Amino acid sequence: MTEFTAIGRPTPLIDGRARVTGATRFAADRPLPGLLHARLVPSLYAHARIEAMDTAAALATPGVVAVLTASDLPAVVPSSRSRLLLARGRVIFAGQPVALVLATSEAAAQDGAQQVRVQYDPQPAAVTLDEALAEGAPLVWPDGVPSGENVSAGAHGADQGAAAEAGKQASNVSSAATQTRGDVAAGFAAADVIVERVFTTAMVHQSSLETHTVAAQPDPATGGLTVWSSTQAPFDVRQELAEVLGLPEADLRVIATPVGGGFGGKFGLYEPLVALAARALNRPVRLSLTRLEELLATNPAPATRLRVRLGARRDGELTALEAEVQVDNGCYPFDIAGFFGYMLASFYRVPNFSVRGQDVLTFKPSAGAYRAPGAPCVIFALDSVMDEMAQRLGADPLEFRLRHAARPGDPLADGDPWPGMGMAEVLEALRDHPAWRERAQARARGRGVGIAVGGWMGGTEPAAAACALDRDGRLVVHIGSVDLTGTTTGFALLAAEAFGLPAEKVRVIIGDTATAPYSGATGGSKVTYTTGAAVVQAARAAREQTLAIAADLLEAAAEDLEIVDGLVRVRGAPGKTLKLADIARKTMRFGGQYAPVYAHGRVAETAHAPGFSAQLAEVEVDQETGVVQVRRLVVAQDVGRALNPLAIEGQMHGGAVQGLGWALYEQMGYDAQGQLLTGTWQDYMLPGSMEAPAIETVIVEVPSEHGPFGARGVGEAPVVPTAAAIANAIADATGRRLTDLPMTPARVCAALARPREGVSSGRSA
Amino acid sequence: MTEFTAIGRPTPLIDGRARVTGATRFAADRPLPGLLHARLVPSLYAHARIEAMDTAAALATPGVVAVLTASDLPAVVPSSRSRLLLARGRVIFAGQPVALVLATSEAAAQDGAQQVRVQYDPQPAAVTLDEALAEGAPLVWPDGVPSGENVSAGAHGADQGAAAEAGKQASNVSSAATQTRGDVAAGFAAADVIVERVFTTAMVHQSSLETHTVAAQPDPATGGLTVWSSTQAPFDVRQELAEVLGLPEADLRVIATPVGGGFGGKFGLYEPLVALAARALNRPVRLSLTRLEELLATNPAPATRLRVRLGARRDGELTALEAEVQVDNGCYPFDIAGFFGYMLASFYRVPNFSVRGQDVLTFKPSAGAYRAPGAPCVIFALDSVMDEMAQRLGADPLEFRLRHAARPGDPLADGDPWPGMGMAEVLEALRDHPAWRERAQARARGRGVGIAVGGWMGGTEPAAAACALDRDGRLVVHIGSVDLTGTTTGFALLAAEAFGLPAEKVRVIIGDTATAPYSGATGGSKVTYTTGAAVVQAARAAREQTLAIAADLLEAAAEDLEIVDGLVRVRGAPGKTLKLADIARKTMRFGGQYAPVYAHGRVAETAHAPGFSAQLAEVEVDQETGVVQVRRLVVAQDVGRALNPLAIEGQMHGGAVQGLGWALYEQMGYDAQGQLLTGTWQDYMLPGSMEAPAIETVIVEVPSEHGPFGARGVGEAPVVPTAAAIANAIADATGRRLTDLPMTPARVCAALARPREGVSSGRSA
Repeated sequence: MTEFTAIGRPTPLIDGRARVTGATRFAADRPLPGLLHARLVPSLYAHARIEAMDTAAALATPGVVAVLTASDLPAVVPSSRSRLLLARGRVIFAGQPVALVLATSEAAAQDGAQQVRVQYDPQPAAVTLDEALAEGAPLVWPDGVPSGENVSAGAHGADQGAAAEAGKQASNVSSAATQTRGDVAAGFAAADVIVERVFTTAMVHQSSLETHTVAAQPDPATGGLTVWSSTQAPFDVRQELAEVLGLPEADLRVIATPVGGGFGGKFGLYEPLVALAARALNRPVRLSLTRLEELLATNPAPATRLRVRLGARRDGELTALEAEVQVDNGCYPFDIAGFFGYMLASFYRVPNFSVRGQDVLTFKPSAGAYRAPGAPCVIFALDSVMDEMAQRLGADPLEFRLRHAARPGDPLADGDPWPGMGMAEVLEALRDHPAWRERAQARARGRGVGIAVGGWMGGTEPAAAACALDRDGRLVVHIGSVDLTGTTTGFALLAAEAFGLPAEKVRVIIGDTATAPYSGATGGSKVTYTTGAAVVQAARAAREQTLAIAADLLEAAAEDLEIVDGLVRVRGAPGKTLKLADIARKTMRFGGQYAPVYAHGRVAETAHAPGFSAQLAEVEVDQETGVVQVRRLVVAQDVGRALNPLAIEGQMHGGAVQGLGWALYEQMGYDAQGQLLTGTWQDYMLPGSMEAPAIETVIVEVPSEHGPFGARGVGEAPVVPTAAAIANAIADATGRRLTDLPMTPARVCAALARPREGVSSGRSA
Repeated sequence: MTEFTAIGRPTPLIDGRARVTGATRFAADRPLPGLLHARLVPSLYAHARIEAMDTAAALATPGVVAVLTASDLPAVVPSSRSRLLLARGRVIFAGQPVALVLATSEAAAQDGAQQVRVQYDPQPAAVTLDEALAEGAPLVWPDGVPSGENVSAGAHGADQGAAAEAGKQASNVSSAATQTRGDVAAGFAAADVIVERVFTTAMVHQSSLETHTVAAQPDPATGGLTVWSSTQAPFDVRQELAEVLGLPEADLRVIATPVGGGFGGKFGLYEPLVALAARALNRPVRLSLTRLEELLATNPAPATRLRVRLGARRDGELTALEAEVQVDNGCYPFDIAGFFGYMLASFYRVPNFSVRGQDVLTFKPSAGAYRAPGAPCVIFALDSVMDEMAQRLGADPLEFRLRHAARPGDPLADGDPWPGMGMAEVLEALRDHPAWRERAQARARGRGVGIAVGGWMGGTEPAAAACALDRDGRLVVHIGSVDLTGTTTGFALLAAEAFGLPAEKVRVIIGDTATAPYSGATGGSKVTYTTGAAVVQAARAAREQTLAIAADLLEAAAEDLEIVDGLVRVRGAPGKTLKLADIARKTMRFGGQYAPVYAHGRVAETAHAPGFSAQLAEVEVDQETGVVQVRRLVVAQDVGRALNPLAIEGQMHGGAVQGLGWALYEQMGYDAQGQLLTGTWQDYMLPGSMEAPAIETVIVEVPSEHGPFGARGVGEAPVVPTAAAIANAIADATGRRLTDLPMTPARVCAALARPREGVSSGRSA
C-alpha cells in the first residue's frame, strides 16, 4: 500500500476563509460600470393567451431604460427551457417571464416591472399529473413538443436510461419508456408475499442561498460577449449562448463566478435572455433573481408518483418487481422517467421486472436536476417496499437488503454489469454501527429506527487540465471545473500527491471558457472522478518534465531522482539537489535552455464509479401533533478513496440534511389554477440547524477501478436514502407506512388515525 | 517545396478594426469601481537631499484620499529601476517621483500633487558623460550601485555580450567590458588607410502613443492582486511584483492590456509602486502617466558616444578595428555597453579588433530598451566609417560592404559562429533595386544616395502554448505573449497552417499570467520565433489528437486522413468524412468517449536567428537652412519566411520611420542642471506623416534553421541602419560627414560651413 503524503488528510477548503469572511465576490457583487439591472415581469396565469402588452407606463418609470418583450428578441426555436426567453403570445406557467425591464437600479427595475400592463386571455390549465393525463386535457404544447436534448439529465449519469419511446401523439406525455427482464407474471405467480404501494413525492426546490445570477457585457472589440454566471456548467452555458446568438464559442467568454449553492439547479437558465438583452442595448445587463422569481421561475426537482409492486417467496427470495413511474416535468420535457425506472430495477437482484416511466407535461415551471435527480424518490418507494417486505417475511431488514443488494457484475436494468461499487459494504458498515446494534435501547425510549440504502451511478465526461511550475517553485493547476463543495481543494490534494509537493504549494486556478481546458459541468458526482483524473495526469506529466530538466542539470538519470521538501535530489547522493524554484527559473528567463514545465492531462473515462450510502434514522413521533423529530442520523458512504475527509463529511452532512428536507419539510405547493403557494422561505420550509439532528458519518472506502487514487464521486449518494430511512423509522415507531413526501405533521396525523399495519420490520430483528 | 495554405498571404491584423474604430480597451479605459487615480510628484532637482515634505495641503485638496511617500512603503532594496518606488531621502534625477497622490479623480490627483511641499537641499549633478567621468564628480550611487540583473537588455538578445568587468570602485562607471581578437596594433601598422571618428547619439524616447499605464486591485479572497498593465512583459511584471510584495506568483494576476505602442519601453516600471499603493489603501489604484511624466520619468534609449577607428589595406582588406563605446545609463545601471561593443565587432570580418564598452551613470532617468537597443547607434558609427573607408579606397560602397559582411559561420565578436542569416542577401537585394542601380539620376538632381546595413541577433526564450478544438470546429490557441504589431495574427496563421484550417477559423486568446502558458516578453524579435514555434507544436499535436479520434470513428488509419475545408476525410474515399465540429462535440459532452482535443507546445530554442536590413536613403539637403529631406527610403530585410507580408511591411515602415527620427529629429534635451528641456511633443520632435518619405520594401527570405516555417524575428532590424543610411546620403550630397545624431539643421549648417571632405564613396562607383 502506498503511503500518501497529501491525500487523505482532513484539509480545510482553500476558499473557506474567503467565503465565511465575505471576501468572496459572487456574480451579483461584481461592479460593472454602466450596468443595467434587469427584472422579470412574470405571467399572472399558468395558461393564457397574451392579448396585448402596454409598456408605456413602465418606460415612463424613472430609471427605466428599456422594456423588452418577445418581439424585441430573435424568434429562436424553444428547443431548451432556456430558449423560451420571453413568452411569445402564450404563457404556460404562472411566473413565466413575459417581459424584461432594464433600469439603472434594481429598485427602478422593480418599479418598472410593476407598471407593465399585460392583457391575458386565461385558459384552463392542467396542474396535476391526473389533470394533465385526463381525456381532453389542455395541452402544454398543442403543436408538438419542441425537440432538444436535455443536458441536465445526462449530466447526472442518466444517459444509461433506456431509450425513450417517442410519445408524439397530441398529449401531455412527452416520453415513455419501459424496461423489462424475465417473466413478471410468472414471478408474481410464484410469490408468497406481494407488497404494493403508491408513493408520491413533492416538487422540491434546490434552494441555493445564492439565487440565479447572470451578467452579460458586449465586447466591442470582438463583437462577442463576456458573461458572468453563477453556473455549475460554464462550457454548457457557452454552447447554449453560441447557438442562440450565432457566435463562435471563442467569442464568448463565460466566467463562472463562485457558486453560492448549485445542487444541480445551475446548469444554465437565463443566460441567453440576459445576453440578448445586453446585445440589444449594447450595455452590460445583470439579472439577479429575487427569491420569489427563484421559486416561481427556475427548474426545481419534479414531483413524482411511483406505483411499486414487489413479490417474494416465503424463503425470502425476490420473484418479481413491477413499477410505474410518473414524473411531472412541468412545462418543458425533462425526459427522465425512463431513467427513474432504470434505477428502480437496478439496485436489488430481481429476476423478473417490468418498470414503466412516463414523463408528463403540466402548466408549471419545468423540472430540472437536483442532487441525484430522482434517486431520493426512487429509493423512498423502493426501500419502503423492501422494508415492508422484510417485515412481512419476518426478516432482519438490514440482512434482507444485504441478501438482495446488487453486487459488482450483477446486471443493471439494461443488462450491463454493475461496475465495482460498495452497496453491500455500506450496509455492512451500518450493521456494525452502534446505532444499529443498540437499536433496542432507542426503541425502549419510544423511538423508531429505520434504515435505507441507495446510490448514484456517477456521471462521466471528457475533461482536461493543465499544470505548470511557477518561478517560486509552486505548482499551478488550470482547470475549467467550477468549484462546488471543495472540489478545488481536492484537486490541489491530487496534484500535490501526483507531483510530490505539499498541497499548500499548489494553486488551482479555475479559468473561464476562453482559456480553461474543457471540463464538463460540476455535477453528477463526476468532477473529482473526471477532472480529477486529468489533474493527476497533468501533474504527473509536469513532474516528469521537471525531473527531466533536473536530470540534465544534475547529470543523473531521471529515474534516480525524487522530489522531497521542494527539492529534487538524487537518491543516495544527499548533496546533489536542486530547488524546484531554481529549475523553474531556468525555464522562464531570456536565453533559458529548458522549455517551461507545462503539461496537460486529458481523459475520457467511460467506466462509471457508483457511490452508495446506507443510512439509519432514529425518530420520535409526537402522537398528538404528528411532528416527527429525527434524533439520530447515521450516514455510511462508500467514497472509494477519501481524498479530503473533511470535505467528504461536509458532503455527507449536507446531503443528509437535504434528504431530511425531502422527507419531512419541503414541497412547492400550487393551487388549482397553478398559482405557486410557496413563494417565500416562510412558506417553503427548509430544514435549518434547529431541524437537523447530530449526524454521524462512516466513511467506507471501496476503491474505484478508474478514479484518481480510487476516488468516487461523493456529492449525490448521501441525499438518496435519507427520506426512505426516515419513513422506515416512522413505520418502526408508529406501525404506519407513510407513502407521500414530505411526511408533514398532517400526513402523520392522518396515518396515525388509521389502524396499525403491524410491527415494523426492524422490531422483528 | 510545400504549398502553404495560410502563411504567406497578406492578412489584415485581427485586431485592426477594433483598434481603428476605438473599440479596443486600453489599460486606462477599464472602469474600476472605487478607483483611485494616482499622480506622481516629481523631483524638481536632478540631485538633491530631501530635507522635509509637507503633505497637509495636498491632503486637504478636495478629492485627495492619500499622499504616499517613501516612509509609507516597505524599504525594498532598489535592485531594479522599478524598485526605486518613491525617493527615499535623496533624488537622483529631475522628475524622480518623491510622492504619490491618490484621489477620486485625475484632476483632484493633479491638484493634490501640486500642493505637496518638498524642501530640497540641491546638490551638484553630473549630467553629461564628461561630467560623470570627471575627477571628483558627484556620484549617483555613492554607497555602491545596487546589484540586480537588468531584464530588458537580455530580452533583446543582449545576453550574448561579453561578461561585464566589475566596476566596483567609487565612480559613476557601473560596468566596463573589453573584447579583443588578434593583434590590433599590428593590424593598424599594416593599414594603408585609417579612418577614425567620434560619434554621438542622443537620448531618444520610445514615445508610444499610449503612455505607461498600470492599475492594481487587491483581491480580498486570495490576499493577492490583479494588475492591469500596458506591458510587453506580463510574466516579468509578475515576477517583479511577487518579489517586491512577497507574494506567490500565482496570487498575482497580471493582465496585459492591449499595448498602444511599446518599442521596448514597456517591460515594467511603475507596477510595484502602484501595487503597493493599492495594497496600502486596499482599493484599486491606477496610474496613467501624463506625457510630461512619460518624458520625465520613464526609461528612454541611452545617449552614446562611440569612437571608432578602422584600418584597411589599399587592396581593400580590413586590418584592424578599435572602438570605445560609452553609454549614458542615466541614474540606474543598464549594463549594455559591452553588448554594444560586441555588436560593433561582429558585423564585418575584421581579423584584429579591440572594443571597449563603458556604462556611465548620470543624474538623468535610467536608460532602457528601445527597438534593437544600441544597434542604431552602433551601425550609425560603424557604417559611417565603412562608408568613408570605401570612399577613401575608391571602392563601391555596396560591394565593399558585401565583401566584408559576416557570413553564417564567421566568428562573432566572442568567437561563436554566426548562425544562418542574410546580411549578404539583403545587400544583394539592394544592389538589384532600381533606386541603387539608377542612383546617378538622383544625384543628377542634386540628391545624395547612401546605404547602410545592420541587423539584430534575435532573442531566445522558452515559451509554451496550448491549443484546443472548440465545439464549433474552430481552433483556439492560448498564449501568454502580448500582441505587438500583429504577432497574434501571425500565430493564427501559424496554427492554421500547422493544423490545416483557414486562419479565420482560428482564435488566439492572450491569457493573463494566472492561466496563460509561459512566454517571455514580446520584444527582442523573438516572439514569433519562440512562442510561434510553441504554437506550431501545439497545433500539430492538436491535429494529431483530432486525427486519432477521427481514425477511430471512421475506422481508418490516422495517416490516411487529411483535413480539408473543416472536414476530416479519408484520402481516396470521398464519402468517408467527419466535420471537425462533430469530432469536437464528441469530446465535450456527457458520457463522451473521447478526451478533449487539448494539446500544448513547449520549446526552448537556443539557436539565434538574426535578421538583417539593408537600406538606401535618397536625400535633399537645403544648403542654406541645413534642412534634410529624405525623398526615398528603400528597406530590404531578411525575414526568413514572410508569414504575413502585410504585417512585415508594416514593421519595415515603422522601423524605418523610427530610424528617421533617430537620424534627423529626436533628442531628449537636458540643461546644465539636468532639467529636461523637451517635456512635450512640441519640444521633442517625432517624425510624422509629413516627414516620412514613401518607403519601398523588399522582403528577402533566407529561411532560419529553427524558426517556425523558417521565420525570423522582424521587429528590430528595420530601425537599425536607417540613421547610417541617411548620414551616408548626406555625405554623398554634401561631401561632409555628420557624426552626431540627430542631424539637425543647425548641425548640417555647421558641417556645411566646414570644407568638403572629398567626394562621397557613392559617386566613385
